[in-house]
Amino acid sequence: MKIALDAMGGDFAPREIVLGAVRAARKTKSELAIVLVGDEKKIREELKSEKGWENLPISIHHAGEVISMNEHPAEAIRQKKDASVVVATRLVKDGECDAVLSAGSTGAAVTAAQLILKRIKGVSRPAIATPMPTPMGVTLLLDSGANVDSKPEHLLQSALMGSIYAEHVLGKNNPRVGLLNIGEEETKGNEQAKETYQLLKQISTINFVGNAEGRDIPKGNFDVVVCDGFVGNVVLKFAEGMAVTFFELIREAIMNGGVFAKMGALLLRPTLRKLGKRLDVDEYGGAPLLGVNGCCIISHGSSNAKSIENAIKAAGDYVHRDVLAHIQNALVKGGDVAE
Amino acid sequence: MKIALDAMGGDFAPREIVLGAVRAARKTKSELAIVLVGDEKKIREELKSEKGWENLPISIHHAGEVISMNEHPAEAIRQKKDASVVVATRLVKDGECDAVLSAGSTGAAVTAAQLILKRIKGVSRPAIATPMPTPMGVTLLLDSGANVDSKPEHLLQSALMGSIYAEHVLGKNNPRVGLLNIGEEETKGNEQAKETYQLLKQISTINFVGNAEGRDIPKGNFDVVVCDGFVGNVVLKFAEGMAVTFFELIREAIMNGGVFAKMGALLLRPTLRKLGKRLDVDEYGGAPLLGVNGCCIISHGSSNAKSIENAIKAAGDYVHRDVLAHIQNALVKGGDVAE
Repeated sequence: MKIALDAMGGDFAPREIVLGAVRAARKTKSELAIVLVGDEKKIREELKSEKGWENLPISIHHAGEVISMNEHPAEAIRQKKDASVVVATRLVKDGECDAVLSAGSTGAAVTAAQLILKRIKGVSRPAIATPMPTPMGVTLLLDSGANVDSKPEHLLQSALMGSIYAEHVLGKNNPRVGLLNIGEEETKGNEQAKETYQLLKQISTINFVGNAEGRDIPKGNFDVVVCDGFVGNVVLKFAEGMAVTFFELIREAIMNGGVFAKMGALLLRPTLRKLGKRLDVDEYGGAPLLGVNGCCIISHGSSNAKSIENAIKAAGDYVHRDVLAHIQNALVKGGDVAE
Repeated sequence: MKIALDAMGGDFAPREIVLGAVRAARKTKSELAIVLVGDEKKIREELKSEKGWENLPISIHHAGEVISMNEHPAEAIRQKKDASVVVATRLVKDGECDAVLSAGSTGAAVTAAQLILKRIKGVSRPAIATPMPTPMGVTLLLDSGANVDSKPEHLLQSALMGSIYAEHVLGKNNPRVGLLNIGEEETKGNEQAKETYQLLKQISTINFVGNAEGRDIPKGNFDVVVCDGFVGNVVLKFAEGMAVTFFELIREAIMNGGVFAKMGALLLRPTLRKLGKRLDVDEYGGAPLLGVNGCCIISHGSSNAKSIENAIKAAGDYVHRDVLAHIQNALVKGGDVAE
């Protein structure tokens, strides 16, 4: 198994990306190979400090351009044929790699996957499925930003794809699928949610439990929560901001809290660390773009080596568990019901 | 100033509602009077334990019916003319009270206000404006659930009303208004957001700073964040769920953390308490329904006495600072630009 890793994408690229690749390669050894895609000189520079990397299953595939966060995705992809994310995606298309992984511009990664890998037959719109940490494990939130103004059929497809991913990769048995809404009753919500509810109700291949409210996500009351990419993206970023703010406030409160508070914090540190690890998004690293013909994993822009390592693991699981084939099969059936 | 308080609305009604009223009355003394609206017998029962309440500016206005959380708001309001929230709202309409406050069904309170108080001229849709705690004070999120599938003009009106409330009640000078979106650039987002951006750009009476992303809300980067009621409601409930989960996890981690963790927690307790208080939604109690002809304050269903006390304070501020007149003036101007 070979993973094409966009070495130039992300706030801390190429440093943290390369580091994550090395760590993953050291652990998995011969099970998977990593192709670092990007500026060869810069990548080599980073690899220098990783002693013995030559013996790891890591190779470099040069790509001379980079798409930055601020560029318009579709335009950038058309103009920069040699951009790292484009080249990495093409490696999957050409059968040289099994998965592409990028922490760069999400829009660029999604657009590249759509244009190069194309959509799975029966899928009108791919969706980013983000695993969110909860006390009950993870809840898969999708779509978390690939598309906005989605139609009910698109959300139905997301539900099918999310359920498959939750079952085969996240190990959820008969995953509980919820529709993100503003009330429990099926008559609640906007037009999109009300119509989607009616579609989901009719699908027998997934375990649709009903509407999920905002609070059900952090509480882990569902395995899969389906929503429009606009709402999902807002929620995802809100969660990130709230977690960061919370830990900052605790730190600040301790600093201003006098000697007892500081002693207490010292004693509590291992406990809080463990908790932080449990809630750390980096532990869950990658979010698959479900619905394209190939494995495309998206990591958040601020990915560090640990996120990348975990995202590589997610890519491996996706390929290993044959998620693509499962989705292809299901969508043919699912499409029938929806039409 | 007189406040009509729906004594029967909320998970802990009438107990906590009555208690909140008594506390508020004890503090404010003669500045404001509270009319407890609901089942007189039950209210008297609760008041019994509050020694000397007869000397407080509290009175009872009997209402024989209650609208529960699960009833369809519009139907319930039509059928139950004697429901506490309906009677309380009518007291404002009739000029007997200056504000209505309910912790019962949000839908019922909003519908009652729309039907009885009517909308302000120039406002097509009222919006619930919820103050959310951040390290920088509060951020006003609106609409947090009065309406869904809003048009850009509605969001523009929300921006105008929210800005006025933030300035006059929350004490924000030239409040920074943001449009909730999935990216900073004005070309980002769904159709609703893109069109709203263009409208907001043209308004000179508010300080429109640009798009706000999900993470900007908990970080407190804006004073007012405008969005569709569907998105706002999801975000609000997500925040509630995340805060509850977080504190539960900390408690659980401490319980399982051995003797050092417990000692640390003991030493840190005053610091964490202070922090909890700073982030506690109950401290900010009430969310005004902006855009109706009268002051209508909505409290969350799980309101305790403290929330009610703070919501009464919010109602007092709303009336005292003449929010209604400010909105009426602004909307005449704002309406011109929008059309």
